[in-house]
Amino acid sequence: MTLTCAVIGAGAWGTALADRLAHNGHAVRLWGYETDVVDAINQHHTNRFLAGITLHPAITASHEIGEVVTGAGLVVMAAPSHVTRAVAESAHPFLSSSAAVVVASKGIEQHSLALMTEVVDDVFDIGPSIALSGPSFAAEVASGQPTAVVVACADVERARFAQQAFSGQTFRVYTQDDVVGVELGGSLKNVMAVATGIAEGLGLGFNARAALITRGLVEMTRLGVALGAKASTFAGLAGMGDLVLTCTGSLSRNRTLGLEIGKGATLDEVLATRETVAEGVITARSARALAERHGVSMPIVDAVHGVLFDGRSSRETMNELMNRDLRAEQDS
Amino acid sequence: MTLTCAVIGAGAWGTALADRLAHNGHAVRLWGYETDVVDAINQHHTNRFLAGITLHPAITASHEIGEVVTGAGLVVMAAPSHVTRAVAESAHPFLSSSAAVVVASKGIEQHSLALMTEVVDDVFDIGPSIALSGPSFAAEVASGQPTAVVVACADVERARFAQQAFSGQTFRVYTQDDVVGVELGGSLKNVMAVATGIAEGLGLGFNARAALITRGLVEMTRLGVALGAKASTFAGLAGMGDLVLTCTGSLSRNRTLGLEIGKGATLDEVLATRETVAEGVITARSARALAERHGVSMPIVDAVHGVLFDGRSSRETMNELMNRDLRAEQDS
Repeated sequence: MTLTCAVIGAGAWGTALADRLAHNGHAVRLWGYETDVVDAINQHHTNRFLAGITLHPAITASHEIGEVVTGAGLVVMAAPSHVTRAVAESAHPFLSSSAAVVVASKGIEQHSLALMTEVVDDVFDIGPSIALSGPSFAAEVASGQPTAVVVACADVERARFAQQAFSGQTFRVYTQDDVVGVELGGSLKNVMAVATGIAEGLGLGFNARAALITRGLVEMTRLGVALGAKASTFAGLAGMGDLVLTCTGSLSRNRTLGLEIGKGATLDEVLATRETVAEGVITARSARALAERHGVSMPIVDAVHGVLFDGRSSRETMNELMNRDLRAEQDS
Repeated sequence: MTLTCAVIGAGAWGTALADRLAHNGHAVRLWGYETDVVDAINQHHTNRFLAGITLHPAITASHEIGEVVTGAGLVVMAAPSHVTRAVAESAHPFLSSSAAVVVASKGIEQHSLALMTEVVDDVFDIGPSIALSGPSFAAEVASGQPTAVVVACADVERARFAQQAFSGQTFRVYTQDDVVGVELGGSLKNVMAVATGIAEGLGLGFNARAALITRGLVEMTRLGVALGAKASTFAGLAGMGDLVLTCTGSLSRNRTLGLEIGKGATLDEVLATRETVAEGVITARSARALAERHGVSMPIVDAVHGVLFDGRSSRETMNELMNRDLRAEQDS
């Protein structure tokens, strides 16, 4: 089965997924926002967001979303979460009603507090899209390092379709039906990565990091269950797997941001030096609002929110987190 | 409350726990097997198993187990798991029947397949001992880095007693009643650390490591539930927390051993260069036997066992693990 694929978003993750699809023999068109990125893909098969990688030559890039989306049987949404609605709206006029849509962006829309598949489904209105998530540094995916992810859809046939399209020797794709759990795992882990970075910036060690990750998964699971997700999803690749990767692998944008803040920088100072957004910053706001709406206790999310937006001291906030009353482990 | 404490085993972990107890104002006697280690503790407050740390001066060490155990109200078992029964037998004649016993050793006895609290309770016969486990590199504990662990006992009053004895500003202790889950978590994670090391030795990346850790926790939980543990324990500090620490923190003995084997060394070659035992090697045998006895599928344990003891190739075994049939994530 050879598909015509449109990948919307030429950041590291969108480009790595485009590369996987091209290696599977599909025709792949990639939409990029930055014209220099589009030109480099077409002329040199490179992308500065994926340094050191030579992309599959069958990938063509364009800045015109109509050129990319028209006629595509598989559409992959991979723009940053805060622009996903706007990008989907610009793609919508060109979308085939029979297309399968995979959502690889990870985040929670501000104000609406919608997950990315909800945003995309709201705009496209062609049936449920498929969430793709799991522990997957883009550079490793693009360089053919073994990776396992999940695709989740309420419609199991669509999930299997995406599984077949993406699966390859080094890229294992498992199916899931818990879309909310898979998406929340991928989104909330970015807030935990900021927390881990702050702890590292303060000089805390591996023991504290492991405790933070463990307690982080507990509160992610608690919010997920309140929103209708399965607890077991958070013990899987899109929950624990992605959380562990992002909090312990090479420094992600979110962890680096936390690290700088733990060392004393303010959020404004860190953001002023960056071209790309750390999803965890936006998600800290959305997650806190979701937790409040559903009456769920999320002390680590509260701590990150307090440090990023309320001027709280990193050290005092982290000390408070570590020094909550002694109690049984299964209590909150 | 000031206790007289006996810590049996002057390796890194026993010594770090002795140091915590001394910092809490308790009188601490430490039994060491190596006489040079005993002398260094008494004369210089140092231990070569905890390089760079100055121990609390109130710790006294001895090679005579009777001197250490007689009159102790709290006894901490911290010898390697394969000598725990023999060491407990030598301590038994001096043990007060009113002592609380904390078991900090992590492993599964060969042949009997008993957990360490079962071994100790079998020898001491003074009521249930307390398992202490969780993400805790000894060097970080001894240097006062924030750490969170659990103490588990069927008798909740004993667990609370241990919690009070060990808790301090930088050492948080949570109580648990799932002794089997807590002990299995601490034991089985060492096998997963060997697996992670093998993957690293073969040159696999962070994505593969995160997938291995995730699937590792799934099979640890599966065995635990078959043995009567709670699945939720494996999502806690003694399960996921310790697993993440050991597989991602600085190189543990188990991960280093796996790394060398992944790079092509045989088990005999690696063991010939070491003074101390990597618990994961012994636990790979015991865990495989437990899984067979209970009819539980543990593909990662099988893989480690095959590479360590059956002469299987690291690369082929790891490829097979990574390339199991595509399926839904919740299936085995």
